[in-house]
Amino acid sequence: MNVIEVPDASDERLADYVRLRDVNLRKSLEAEHGLFMAEGEKVIRRALRAGYVPRSVLLTERRRAALADVLDRLDAPVYVVAEDVAERLVGFDLHRGALASFHRRPLPDLEDVLRGARRVVVLEDIVDHTNVGAIFRSAAGLGIDAIVLAPRCADPLYRRAVKVSMGAVFTLAHTRLRDWYGGLEALRGQGFRLLALTPAPGSVPLAEALADAAPDARHALLLGTEGDGLSSRWLEQADARVRIPMAARDVDSLNVTAAAAIACYELVRR
Amino acid sequence: MNVIEVPDASDERLADYVRLRDVNLRKSLEAEHGLFMAEGEKVIRRALRAGYVPRSVLLTERRRAALADVLDRLDAPVYVVAEDVAERLVGFDLHRGALASFHRRPLPDLEDVLRGARRVVVLEDIVDHTNVGAIFRSAAGLGIDAIVLAPRCADPLYRRAVKVSMGAVFTLAHTRLRDWYGGLEALRGQGFRLLALTPAPGSVPLAEALADAAPDARHALLLGTEGDGLSSRWLEQADARVRIPMAARDVDSLNVTAAAAIACYELVRR
Ligand SMILES: C[S@@+](CC[C@H](N)C(=O)[O-])C[C@H]1O[C@@H](n2cnc3c(N)ncnc32)[C@H](O)[C@@H]1O
Ligand SMILES: C[S@@+](CC[C@H](N)C(=O)[O-])C[C@H]1O[C@@H](n2cnc3c(N)ncnc32)[C@H](O)[C@@H]1O
Repeated sequence: MNVIEVPDASDERLADYVRLRDVNLRKSLEAEHGLFMAEGEKVIRRALRAGYVPRSVLLTERRRAALADVLDRLDAPVYVVAEDVAERLVGFDLHRGALASFHRRPLPDLEDVLRGARRVVVLEDIVDHTNVGAIFRSAAGLGIDAIVLAPRCADPLYRRAVKVSMGAVFTLAHTRLRDWYGGLEALRGQGFRLLALTPAPGSVPLAEALADAAPDARHALLLGTEGDGLSSRWLEQADARVRIPMAARDVDSLNVTAAAAIACYELVRR
Repeated sequence: MNVIEVPDASDERLADYVRLRDVNLRKSLEAEHGLFMAEGEKVIRRALRAGYVPRSVLLTERRRAALADVLDRLDAPVYVVAEDVAERLVGFDLHRGALASFHRRPLPDLEDVLRGARRVVVLEDIVDHTNVGAIFRSAAGLGIDAIVLAPRCADPLYRRAVKVSMGAVFTLAHTRLRDWYGGLEALRGQGFRLLALTPAPGSVPLAEALADAAPDARHALLLGTEGDGLSSRWLEQADARVRIPMAARDVDSLNVTAAAAIACYELVRR
């Protein structure tokens, strides 16, 4: 294990870890360097198990023995810093602290992700990283085969999404469409039936839409953004508009993570 | 409308609004004064519509015309403050700002909440206010009749829970058990079949457990805390342990809000 004590928060070797709560800074920094952050021992172990290659690990003095079993076998530097240095560096108290910076991998081709998949989730422009992470966790837990993201959907490898997914972003196959406008055609071309989830009137209950499908049918569940829902383009492109029936109450839609969980459950059980 | 411009963040009349992000301070302050906070126009309107009585309203100068239609009819003072005063007072930027402080109402008796209810959700010790709010939103949206909280479950009228619930905490009947150890007996006494939701082995799939129930059966879905799940006491007290089937993957449980959404959906559709 290659342990290096770093006394100074402005040390260049710690540059991967700066200001973890500054979303805009982090987005461009992580994109530019092709890295992502994993936080907490459990999530770091899962990233390693999934074959991601670490750039470095950051531990506080109190936790310097953490992860020793896996770190022993790695070449990546393990930076050990005092707690106040960690706090100044990342921007919050890291007392339970383990962080690791990993190399991203190129996203797979859509055809590779869809090959063999029968049940996929397609996320249009989900904004909130927490929601993206939560959807990955539910989809993986319930047995969805893959997730496809629209060009502008929030990044599943963003720290917060990784954490909320409990590492499901490492194991559940996923990729991103390059083209929003025509992108769904690629799914339809592979024989997927596109079900647009929308609480709006004029949809059929999801369970009904699935009831008459062939047992080996391929389905894609399309979910829309938190505020406005699916774009009219994607609603038009879908084969059917489906809803999760709502009670006649004050609440007019479900949170997108709740809708995703229910839809995945309903799709997987048949 | 009783509009009062307040130039100073330390003015006593603004005491309801101090340091909204300091969870510990807020918990004791709100309990002591029997108040809760509503944030955002939509949520404030819903609280008013549900009959809650405001103590006061706080608007920033830029938003002083907000809510004029409903505030015109109220006696409560409307405090208007400069944006920097608002920020110093509440502890964050309130630029889209409308806040209101409301009087709490006494929680109803359990018997009153259960009367006429056929499908209820029981939350044991959910810690996270976001999760409590999300469960209220899903339960209300899907048509659950009432929610019962264990003594230590997080407060649904806490600002964050109110906001995430989109106001469903105002409309969905709920109350709190006084007794954790024996509390479930009161539900069973009313003829409820208690289904303990747990991903652990030794449970039956939820859909199976519901399939053989009489059409007018009364059901209570018991959900456990984020970390450890239901207590062994409540697991023992339940009539059946039920699970949402999981894929054989790395993910060993669903987030409690996802589990709640699926369970409510499954219960309501039969
Ligand atoms: C918060 S909702 C957006 C609400 C938006 N007003 C609309 O009409 O779509 C976010 C996403 O969750 C899904 N969703 C929420 N409630 C749903 C329901 N009852 N049936 C089907 N999908 C739902 C949809 O995919 C939607 O795009
Ligand atoms: C994150 S889980 C707790 C996990 C905990 N290790 C356990 O075994 O219960 C929180 C709650 O969500 C519910 N839950 C999560 N996944 C579930 C599943 N697959 N089936 C039934 N309930 C589930 C349970 O009520 C659980 O108490």
